[in-house]
Amino acid sequence: MSKPKIELFDSTLRDGAQGEGISYSVSDKLSIVRALDDFGVDYIEAGNPGSNPKDIAFFREIRVDTLQHARLCAFGSTHKKGATPQTDPNVLSLLKAETPAVSLFGKAWDLHVHKVLMATLQENLDLVGNTVRFFHAQGREVIFDAEHFFDGLRANRDYALQVLEVALQAGASCLCLCDTNGGTMPLTVYDDVKLVRERFPDAKVGIHCHNDTGCAVASSIMGVEAGARQVQGTFIGTGERCGNADLSVIIPNLQLKLGYDCVSDGLHDLLQTVRQVTEISNLQVPGNTPYVGASAFAHKGGMHIDGVNKISESFEHVSPESVGNTRRFLMSEVSGRSMVMRKLATVAPELTRDSAEVATILSKLKDLENEGYQFEAADASFELMARRTLGRFAPHFNTVMYRTTGEYPPPAGDNSASAIISLVVDGQEETTAAMGNGPVHALDMALRKALNVFYPGLSEVRLTDYKVRVLTGAEATASKVRVLIESTDGEHSWTTVGVGTDVVAASWEALCDSLEYMLHLRKGE
Amino acid sequence: MSKPKIELFDSTLRDGAQGEGISYSVSDKLSIVRALDDFGVDYIEAGNPGSNPKDIAFFREIRVDTLQHARLCAFGSTHKKGATPQTDPNVLSLLKAETPAVSLFGKAWDLHVHKVLMATLQENLDLVGNTVRFFHAQGREVIFDAEHFFDGLRANRDYALQVLEVALQAGASCLCLCDTNGGTMPLTVYDDVKLVRERFPDAKVGIHCHNDTGCAVASSIMGVEAGARQVQGTFIGTGERCGNADLSVIIPNLQLKLGYDCVSDGLHDLLQTVRQVTEISNLQVPGNTPYVGASAFAHKGGMHIDGVNKISESFEHVSPESVGNTRRFLMSEVSGRSMVMRKLATVAPELTRDSAEVATILSKLKDLENEGYQFEAADASFELMARRTLGRFAPHFNTVMYRTTGEYPPPAGDNSASAIISLVVDGQEETTAAMGNGPVHALDMALRKALNVFYPGLSEVRLTDYKVRVLTGAEATASKVRVLIESTDGEHSWTTVGVGTDVVAASWEALCDSLEYMLHLRKGE
Repeated sequence: MSKPKIELFDSTLRDGAQGEGISYSVSDKLSIVRALDDFGVDYIEAGNPGSNPKDIAFFREIRVDTLQHARLCAFGSTHKKGATPQTDPNVLSLLKAETPAVSLFGKAWDLHVHKVLMATLQENLDLVGNTVRFFHAQGREVIFDAEHFFDGLRANRDYALQVLEVALQAGASCLCLCDTNGGTMPLTVYDDVKLVRERFPDAKVGIHCHNDTGCAVASSIMGVEAGARQVQGTFIGTGERCGNADLSVIIPNLQLKLGYDCVSDGLHDLLQTVRQVTEISNLQVPGNTPYVGASAFAHKGGMHIDGVNKISESFEHVSPESVGNTRRFLMSEVSGRSMVMRKLATVAPELTRDSAEVATILSKLKDLENEGYQFEAADASFELMARRTLGRFAPHFNTVMYRTTGEYPPPAGDNSASAIISLVVDGQEETTAAMGNGPVHALDMALRKALNVFYPGLSEVRLTDYKVRVLTGAEATASKVRVLIESTDGEHSWTTVGVGTDVVAASWEALCDSLEYMLHLRKGE
Repeated sequence: MSKPKIELFDSTLRDGAQGEGISYSVSDKLSIVRALDDFGVDYIEAGNPGSNPKDIAFFREIRVDTLQHARLCAFGSTHKKGATPQTDPNVLSLLKAETPAVSLFGKAWDLHVHKVLMATLQENLDLVGNTVRFFHAQGREVIFDAEHFFDGLRANRDYALQVLEVALQAGASCLCLCDTNGGTMPLTVYDDVKLVRERFPDAKVGIHCHNDTGCAVASSIMGVEAGARQVQGTFIGTGERCGNADLSVIIPNLQLKLGYDCVSDGLHDLLQTVRQVTEISNLQVPGNTPYVGASAFAHKGGMHIDGVNKISESFEHVSPESVGNTRRFLMSEVSGRSMVMRKLATVAPELTRDSAEVATILSKLKDLENEGYQFEAADASFELMARRTLGRFAPHFNTVMYRTTGEYPPPAGDNSASAIISLVVDGQEETTAAMGNGPVHALDMALRKALNVFYPGLSEVRLTDYKVRVLTGAEATASKVRVLIESTDGEHSWTTVGVGTDVVAASWEALCDSLEYMLHLRKGE
């Protein structure tokens, strides 16, 4: 690689934690720091000790010397008007965090100085200079976050640049230009970063974008192209409002597409790192996330599948393996034989494209899709269908009957429904019943209860998602529905499908497939 | 506005339908076309009649002359090698769609010509020229989609430009540059569009981006800044892999941030249009979507709230009202109120913006939306809620109880379920029962049967659509669901909503509202 190294500054645990519904325990934070350090991030901004007591506990607990690669960073503000760094409690909390680096934010937009800080322009310059100098004198690396820099430059160009000048003179190691409101367009970011680079040719410049115009990734990259050498962002772009710039997308863009060095050989661990961070954050990676989403390399159109099979770069801008992801071909009427072959590889590896069995499965697939089934997502149901069609399926249980009852007013608290089911396992009949807050929930409870008699440990299986899609609106409540159920046993996860005019019957089909698949998995089939 | 008009080319129904899990019925498509036309989109690419038989039915059904603003467009490929436009069945299907405009895609990357099309470079030029000429001669407007243009330009610059030249000479009205694999970086898009504009100064240039690097919005905008005058994309960015460029973000960026004209005064309807399109698509708008997401103007940090209260632009890059969205921490925001005022016009025309009743309804609305209700589509349920809140509601019936039973195997043909219901009308109790192919269908039948005793003629009411949306996937079969039911009496049509953890109970709520609304309509209330 001929292009320079770009420093990665991760703020998942600080700015990312401002996102709706996100909150981290101290141990969550410790785990995420570990994952980010393993991956090769350069700075980890892990909290705001001045505003958050939990963060004080975290910084007390973490042992900085165990980090292999990253520098730990705590975030805080310039000291308050009327105080000094030595007397401002927030500044002192930040000092006590004892991190090798601090990120200090100060106002760079005159509007904020006047209307929010209620200070004069000179007073604000003093706050910036004093606080940077204070931490620099304490031997800390100071990254100066110039808040609202781009809006500030529009409003009062000289002043915004003066703020940077003061921070630099006071000892800041990096001037990070923040688009705090996220409203700056990428070409403007490019021009403005260029301007700052020209004005301060010896300073390291950073870029910190928010996604309020959907351009945070692009603007970060434009910043780098204009000369920034540090990029701030969060994993999968968590953050207030529309989120921060998504580092998990910026990193492969910079390294694979533009030839900068970010994590050297570590890029194939990207997906795994994203999964660790999101799991701990209790978030799901949206399927369409570039590089790391489940659909990022999923092909549906027949022409695309044909093209990728002929030559992968024809419809893939980078190889999925380069970021640890995998190519997926979505099952659909148009996708055809070569796709089915790929999916059959585990079930019946000896079959070839011309085997009669493959033709039979293909035609079965088409029939089922015409009835409303969809195997794009439902890999587990596809595998069971293939086994059944090939005569390689021994059911672990058969349904004799079920009966559900729904009542209004609910007879028992939240439980408005009950289900009686009867199954046969190895010639032995088991009848049981359960309640639930709806007929499907009651069936789910009863099914697990009955199977647990024969196959203990099924309680590990959890349903993680349940989707209902109405297929033909025309017949209204007699419409056909498709139900997709996603399950996990903690290690694997799989999806099954059921179709019918009765949502209860379609759900039952998908539930039974889910548990059948689990029992097959256990046997190592 | 001093900057030029940018044409909006929407492909939600074509390229967007390639997204995982998306499939549209003919009536879904008709509704989305209507919503996009109302909003002010210029072109609606609504299907691919050559590859999809369902699309043929759609184009047969739609009446082009009912569109107020948009031109309808069908999508297809250049004719096959070895055929002619006159003999290629896909080209003939495209012709038969009888749309005023067609978007024709042709290969602009030599790699694809050789390795995927298996043709010579000259053969491909002929395919492009012949097919464009054919449709032009038939009086159709031809938008030429230069597939893989940016990759093609890198690989063989002269050839990619030659493809454009041939399409232009053959009569294409627009040269749309497609980044089909979504791998091109924004600065490259900018430079390449500039190059094409210089080479073909009199041609209209379009830009079509995919989001595989997370830069589709930015690249589309960079394309426009470089001289493109048509932008192709989809609403909320649906599409294969990581999706297409998101028009719902591009439009406000172009119009509010950069001063181009896209939909003139119509921008405040953006959010409503996004909601209509996503509801019909059975998708949810991710909360962090720029401009239209529920979190786009949600302020969490105390400092931010304080800043916004002092001066809104301090932490908002545009006003939420400009796109029909609302700031989240305020209870009585202006646009929420005016929406409610509009909806109240029929129920209580004497109320003014400052009436205490309006404030009460607004707060009730917020509570219900927090519980998962949505009144964007469900006008009828909103009206009933407003009547109830204002004390202007005399119910035509009350539910005493219901009980549903679902059975497997089905006890009677297709009818797997039965329902007993008991209602009170004018102090008189009516108990009845019915069967159906699922508990909701059985309830629907029984409800109509019971009401018909008191209000003859209810059989005219038909349910035309039934949608189920799972709101919280996390709890699987115990999740909360939202049910939307669309009904018609042949003259009017209306939509009602129900919410609950039990799909049967939520459906019952929406069913009862539907028939209540019908009875109110009849009385001319």
